[in-house]
Amino acid sequence: MDRSMTASEIARDLGGTLRGGGDTVIRGVAKIEDAGPDDLSFIANAKYVRYLDETRAGALLVAPGMKAEGRTLIEVSDPYLGFMRMLERFHPRSLWLRPGVHPAAVIEPDATVAPDVSIGAFCYVGPRAVIGARSLLYPHVVVCADVVVGEDCEIHSRVTLREGVRLGNRVIVQDGAVIGSDGFGFAPCKDGYVKIPQRGTVVIADDVEIGANTTVDRATLGETSIGPGTKLDNLIQVAHNVTIGSHTVIAAQTGISGSTRVGDRCRIGGQVGIVGHLTVGEGVMIGAQAGVGGDVEPGETVSGSPSRPHALWKRIEAALTRLPELFRRVRALEAAVFEHKNKEKVSS
Amino acid sequence: MDRSMTASEIARDLGGTLRGGGDTVIRGVAKIEDAGPDDLSFIANAKYVRYLDETRAGALLVAPGMKAEGRTLIEVSDPYLGFMRMLERFHPRSLWLRPGVHPAAVIEPDATVAPDVSIGAFCYVGPRAVIGARSLLYPHVVVCADVVVGEDCEIHSRVTLREGVRLGNRVIVQDGAVIGSDGFGFAPCKDGYVKIPQRGTVVIADDVEIGANTTVDRATLGETSIGPGTKLDNLIQVAHNVTIGSHTVIAAQTGISGSTRVGDRCRIGGQVGIVGHLTVGEGVMIGAQAGVGGDVEPGETVSGSPSRPHALWKRIEAALTRLPELFRRVRALEAAVFEHKNKEKVSS
Amino acid sequence: MDRSMTASEIARDLGGTLRGGGDTVIRGVAKIEDAGPDDLSFIANAKYVRYLDETRAGALLVAPGMKAEGRTLIEVSDPYLGFMRMLERFHPRSLWLRPGVHPAAVIEPDATVAPDVSIGAFCYVGPRAVIGARSLLYPHVVVCADVVVGEDCEIHSRVTLREGVRLGNRVIVQDGAVIGSDGFGFAPCKDGYVKIPQRGTVVIADDVEIGANTTVDRATLGETSIGPGTKLDNLIQVAHNVTIGSHTVIAAQTGISGSTRVGDRCRIGGQVGIVGHLTVGEGVMIGAQAGVGGDVEPGETVSGSPSRPHALWKRIEAALTRLPELFRRVRALEAAVFEHKNKEKVSS
Repeated sequence: MDRSMTASEIARDLGGTLRGGGDTVIRGVAKIEDAGPDDLSFIANAKYVRYLDETRAGALLVAPGMKAEGRTLIEVSDPYLGFMRMLERFHPRSLWLRPGVHPAAVIEPDATVAPDVSIGAFCYVGPRAVIGARSLLYPHVVVCADVVVGEDCEIHSRVTLREGVRLGNRVIVQDGAVIGSDGFGFAPCKDGYVKIPQRGTVVIADDVEIGANTTVDRATLGETSIGPGTKLDNLIQVAHNVTIGSHTVIAAQTGISGSTRVGDRCRIGGQVGIVGHLTVGEGVMIGAQAGVGGDVEPGETVSGSPSRPHALWKRIEAALTRLPELFRRVRALEAAVFEHKNKEKVSS
Repeated sequence: MDRSMTASEIARDLGGTLRGGGDTVIRGVAKIEDAGPDDLSFIANAKYVRYLDETRAGALLVAPGMKAEGRTLIEVSDPYLGFMRMLERFHPRSLWLRPGVHPAAVIEPDATVAPDVSIGAFCYVGPRAVIGARSLLYPHVVVCADVVVGEDCEIHSRVTLREGVRLGNRVIVQDGAVIGSDGFGFAPCKDGYVKIPQRGTVVIADDVEIGANTTVDRATLGETSIGPGTKLDNLIQVAHNVTIGSHTVIAAQTGISGSTRVGDRCRIGGQVGIVGHLTVGEGVMIGAQAGVGGDVEPGETVSGSPSRPHALWKRIEAALTRLPELFRRVRALEAAVFEHKNKEKVSS
Repeated sequence: MDRSMTASEIARDLGGTLRGGGDTVIRGVAKIEDAGPDDLSFIANAKYVRYLDETRAGALLVAPGMKAEGRTLIEVSDPYLGFMRMLERFHPRSLWLRPGVHPAAVIEPDATVAPDVSIGAFCYVGPRAVIGARSLLYPHVVVCADVVVGEDCEIHSRVTLREGVRLGNRVIVQDGAVIGSDGFGFAPCKDGYVKIPQRGTVVIADDVEIGANTTVDRATLGETSIGPGTKLDNLIQVAHNVTIGSHTVIAAQTGISGSTRVGDRCRIGGQVGIVGHLTVGEGVMIGAQAGVGGDVEPGETVSGSPSRPHALWKRIEAALTRLPELFRRVRALEAAVFEHKNKEKVSS
């Protein structure tokens, strides 16, 4: 299938302004380092301007005002988003999952499945579960009893949605994630521990994405909840009764302990640990590998383990490098002061 | 189904003492913040006493001696455990998995399956495997050759039990966990690494719980073993030949390296790393994100990375906050001492 | 089946030199602490020489020159590798997976499967996928569209190979790993985030091993790649567009962020975090729990979070233990210096 476009067609499509040869034929998109004469690329970041001379790209999306002799440039207000649109156009997703229900899937008779879903081989849809319109279940998805999956969801292979879990619309869950496993709750008793029944559920709002092999535990009572537009990377742990707000982004291998509340529009790095029963305010940023042991005020940036305000942490980090030297300086001071005192004693 | 009880019926059932109106009808349980007039709640912790006035709960389980005007209180020796019993009664587990073997499961002919098990769709039970009485295998469980699962176990969806793994009775394994994957053993050779065969197995004792997507590697030779009543949270890594004692609790994302021995009744926080070939004694407590690089004596509490006795670590932590200030103080001392000395030199 | 050998047969088989009774019959191998009179064991490490007197082993593989009265010793140049060879011989792998395609597997009609593969129950092999000669797919493996699996691969249960992923020969993937999940890429927009399409793939070279529940994300464009002979432990996160060289070993729960390049023959500890867009040179060693925030030069060893040259980190670590004491020493100095000054002021 021929997906080629000329540079002027691309400029028109993106509502941009063409600078240079509009007849250049583009057949794909590529990063600026890798692009060839048939490729469209982009410069969104001043750091990459040095590639303007070297790149072999046939055409470039750039911010208004950027110049380069003999190049085909297309000025657009957001070169990155423009590039994404062209990426979708030139490299459309391979929708290999066939429409309908694969004959090797099992749908329990009292489940409700919209007529236009795609459900892959060996999917299991349990009693009373509901799968909304146009949702995709890749092979080996396990949907337990009473689960609700909204419309236009994309559930990748080997995801488990445990009993009673509810997903909004346009939710994407990457392969192997577990939503609704039992929370980790045990009460000490004289012979060890007794399991605290975990009877709540998990509610995932619209436009959330959950990464591969991430685990989200069900609440003891009530709901573990993840707000609209929030994105979780791979191998994250979300414990029981955690609440995460909207449009928050969390990088891989982070863990959030039980009953903690994370606000809207936070940005949390990888391998962060957050203690239970805390409140992390709106718009908070947390550096990678931080260990958060107390509430964080809205808008704060924290780093380190235990975490502190980012600026303080940077000063501590710098001081640590010079700590062995500080010991030497204190020894020198001690020598000077005590030597001096001893002399005084001798002379007096 | 009507599951309602009056407050006096609940008091009788729990062997407690009723204070206030025994006719209050209770239809469910809830946390004190969420409870409504039909709900039973509880106060186990002095921190929550402030809710006594505000809560809308119809009745409250409390410790003996707690008072509140116009409230229906039920005094019991352990309000929390009492609440758990009522939680089980009002919100019984949804046992949606049907008894027997689902027609879409595969049981190899030489496997032995007790007659009263529940085995879900797409479960695979391999050659010579044994599944004990009343055990539940949710959909998509993979039981490899020669595995033994005891009685009353609960194996959630998409768990793998690799060849030869043995589980005791009443073991719970959450979704996606892998028990018995190959240990990470490679011997350097001239062209890189040669794989060391992993021929041992994993033995899990009675009443253990293993969290979602946790991995427990098989021993090189002999056994990786987890003792009775021990509870592992999600996304934990247990390496080959590790031994964990009884009634130990380990939080999410912790990793234990090869051949380390962890004692009985330890409490280990989340994201802890423990180096290989160590001994962690009985009753040890390890703080979240600690990095344990040496043996830990029985009863010790350690924190930090590298870990140190907890009290020392707290002092170091406090000192770190004031480290930039310490540099300023040392500079002031240096100015004073050297200025003084220089003056001395000038004056002498 | 009788797998017994005499000590002299073992010596001949390994090209070693027999010291002591060659008629001793050996029926298995064991660690030196566990070995009985029918077992072969070995001493590769001076630390274990103390076991020479105590062990009940029938025969021992030792380095040339090691002596013990009344023992059956077999001198070989590498006792450990010799032991591994005998381990394979006496305890051969249980190849329980039956040859051919299990009747409960689904192979799409346009997939290409070599005639001598073993494919277990509930495996799914998608459109246009290719499975090479002698490869093993344990139960519940998900092979999406256009995947290529080389020859002699071993794909354990519940692995997902997402669309277009390519594996070389002799690749081993442990249970539950996900290869080719979407990279974590989102562009901020006025209403939150917009997903950046992830259209690249993952390429895994020959002789790689990937651990249980590890996740390797596909590239945005181009390839996430893992070089020949590299070994990844369990629960590791490899982000989109990461490149890992050959013969590199990475321990459990480590995370590598997007577009970072890791060189050949590196050794990376457990729970390490590496920031995105970095270059980690050839032969680098990274200590467990390190946080790597900048490029690392070839051959360097780094530790700590944030990571520093290992020797510096060890000095900082030692200094930290004495940090509370340093505060006391500075207070003492301040008292001495200011007391002195105050006296001077008084006396002058």
